[in-house]
Amino acid sequence: MRIYIIGVDGYLGWPLAMSLAGRGHRVGGCDLHLRRRWVAEMGSQSATPIRSMPVRLKAFRERFGRPVEFAKGDIRDYTFVLSCLRAFRPDAIVHLGEMPSASYSMMDLAHCAFTMTNNLLGTLNILHAMKAACPEAHLVKLGTMGEYGTPNLDIPEGFFTIAYRGRTDTLPFPRQAGSWYHQTKVHDSNNVMFACRMWGLRSTDIMQGVVFGTRIDEMGEDERLLTRVDFDQCFGTAVNRYCAQAAIGHPLTPFGRGHQKRGFLPLRDSMQCLRLAIEHPPAPGEYRVFNQFEEVYDITELAQKVQRVGARLGLQVQIRPLENPRKEKEDHYYQPDHQHLLDLGYQPTHDTEAEMAIMLADLMKSRARIEACRAALIPDIRWDGSRRKVAFVSEGAPAPRPLQVNGPRRAVGRRRELAAKSA
Amino acid sequence: MRIYIIGVDGYLGWPLAMSLAGRGHRVGGCDLHLRRRWVAEMGSQSATPIRSMPVRLKAFRERFGRPVEFAKGDIRDYTFVLSCLRAFRPDAIVHLGEMPSASYSMMDLAHCAFTMTNNLLGTLNILHAMKAACPEAHLVKLGTMGEYGTPNLDIPEGFFTIAYRGRTDTLPFPRQAGSWYHQTKVHDSNNVMFACRMWGLRSTDIMQGVVFGTRIDEMGEDERLLTRVDFDQCFGTAVNRYCAQAAIGHPLTPFGRGHQKRGFLPLRDSMQCLRLAIEHPPAPGEYRVFNQFEEVYDITELAQKVQRVGARLGLQVQIRPLENPRKEKEDHYYQPDHQHLLDLGYQPTHDTEAEMAIMLADLMKSRARIEACRAALIPDIRWDGSRRKVAFVSEGAPAPRPLQVNGPRRAVGRRRELAAKSA
Repeated sequence: MRIYIIGVDGYLGWPLAMSLAGRGHRVGGCDLHLRRRWVAEMGSQSATPIRSMPVRLKAFRERFGRPVEFAKGDIRDYTFVLSCLRAFRPDAIVHLGEMPSASYSMMDLAHCAFTMTNNLLGTLNILHAMKAACPEAHLVKLGTMGEYGTPNLDIPEGFFTIAYRGRTDTLPFPRQAGSWYHQTKVHDSNNVMFACRMWGLRSTDIMQGVVFGTRIDEMGEDERLLTRVDFDQCFGTAVNRYCAQAAIGHPLTPFGRGHQKRGFLPLRDSMQCLRLAIEHPPAPGEYRVFNQFEEVYDITELAQKVQRVGARLGLQVQIRPLENPRKEKEDHYYQPDHQHLLDLGYQPTHDTEAEMAIMLADLMKSRARIEACRAALIPDIRWDGSRRKVAFVSEGAPAPRPLQVNGPRRAVGRRRELAAKSA
Repeated sequence: MRIYIIGVDGYLGWPLAMSLAGRGHRVGGCDLHLRRRWVAEMGSQSATPIRSMPVRLKAFRERFGRPVEFAKGDIRDYTFVLSCLRAFRPDAIVHLGEMPSASYSMMDLAHCAFTMTNNLLGTLNILHAMKAACPEAHLVKLGTMGEYGTPNLDIPEGFFTIAYRGRTDTLPFPRQAGSWYHQTKVHDSNNVMFACRMWGLRSTDIMQGVVFGTRIDEMGEDERLLTRVDFDQCFGTAVNRYCAQAAIGHPLTPFGRGHQKRGFLPLRDSMQCLRLAIEHPPAPGEYRVFNQFEEVYDITELAQKVQRVGARLGLQVQIRPLENPRKEKEDHYYQPDHQHLLDLGYQPTHDTEAEMAIMLADLMKSRARIEACRAALIPDIRWDGSRRKVAFVSEGAPAPRPLQVNGPRRAVGRRRELAAKSA
């Protein structure tokens, strides 16, 4: 198949290009390298020493015997998107070209407005360009499990059939996202669903969990093929941050009471799932939703796993909760479905700790790069709009203004007990 | 109370200023007069001879003894919004400053992207400026009943409590909007709800039905105080268009089979409801949703009412269905709740035909202005993205490519029978 990856320079985009090329697919892609700039803006860098795009492309061609047909450009520019799709004639388009950080979007109005316009206009341009250039192509759109929030119900895959006052219908499952970034993903989902309904486009909307990992097999030992691994407050995801912290002897820092549950999956599983979605497209006009994760963990459980794996590698790993800069439920029900990808043949890795061991080994080689940006490990972006480093809860720091979630299940402060327990 | 109306030059904004001033409230407002430009872009004009803003403001001061504190500016400019709110110190902000037309947003990518950024960034700027300048103020945000679409269930007011797989939660009712414009309103609703949850702002999100009418009592006989009444394909709403058509002897033009049901309310009822929402604010941090309409009608029923009222005034009124340029369900269940405003004391007019008689009398005075833009009465903006005048279904015009809604209840063509019946 001919597969076009928007955001091919990113954490998922770059390994996806390799993963698909390894299966014999033709790969094209575009990127504006904004992710590199955003991470620099946060005073950080990729833990892995990623190469410039020209070096990456050269190494790719050497390894896979054919190029990534690459174009540098901005998907907020419709003519750029249209020319990319016209030139490449894709069977599938994977849209990974969005600003992906909750914290970055919550920084201030400028970052909120940038996230909103960048993500929405990019997706709208892709939809309009598909309609004009390749209406039969399949759009694989990256959403996030965070679109659903944490309702007190099981979370189906996108749609649910419900009875209400004696009637029945199948409706989109309500979304309750927890940041401006997550809101953009909800808006995108609504816009993509609408375009499929109106114009007969086809799309798979991936509600992905939190990805972790430093490598996939297709990279081999060629350092030029490494993907980026971020650990800063904005672009580092939970497990990647933990592993970067463990690698340099920094305590692992779950937020608040640490009971927040999320779906997680290794990078290699994310690649497997995206490939399955691409190779099994929906019917024309169909909009389908996949919940894409391997297992649900709470964030303290994951920290404890990293601690155990670190101990086996001779690392002394502490866990020290930070006050929660976010406004989110810290104790909640969480039971999302994830059957659609299993039905397509997804074979979960089911060995989180083995994956963590690989990550720690990789990141221990990058200690100097992580140490150089150590300050980026502790967040200062708060959901109330202020900007102030959060404190370890065990320090007895003066309590900041309380961050409570409105609604029936308020998070009440039990941080000290937890901190005492985990200390 | 001190009430700031964003979009005070508009169809609703201008009479709302009078309605509130008549109750003794202090009124401020801003506008960029984009609505005047959009209607001109559609080759049309207000049926009523509305005056320039300076003339309106002078007449307002003469009638109510105090001014509208007015500023001309663009709400996409945050510093403008912030300075307005800082200067006026409102108790309530009524946000009517959005691009309000489904057809306009469906014209092409440029109009879609404009609608998306204009509506979303305006609302985001207002939310951020409220947080900075007046976090206690009450945001009355105009949404639309169209956010819900036409599910096969009763439509509650914003939220519903449901059981699913043995658990129960109260969740936002799923939205299935039918145009890019309607999508922006859904995105806005999600963004406003999020800001209330995160920052403790308070808001009433008004899911308003289709408004009709040419006047409210507070205008008296001063022509300088008239509000605009549009009849073009983009900015004319159903009944206003019918009445403009009837006034010049043009047939009334329901779309397709004409069984589409919507909630409707007279302009004076819209004013009464907005006033009730403003005078009974929600608690800090509360986000509430009001479904605001008087009664549900199907669009053929309404055409027949205009026909009857016209006959009493000596007008010969024909009804001739047009092919439907939209992609929407033409036969569907529709049972939305509308109790919250009744609980606050809303007293519905309950005399649609009397209101129509007033409208026809007003619009018959404007025949020349409507005749001058007669071409704007027949739509050419189609939901498939093409631009081609739609034909009367009774003309036996070659059928255009079918506009079918995906999903279980497809609209099948029975247009000829209907046309034959109504001819």
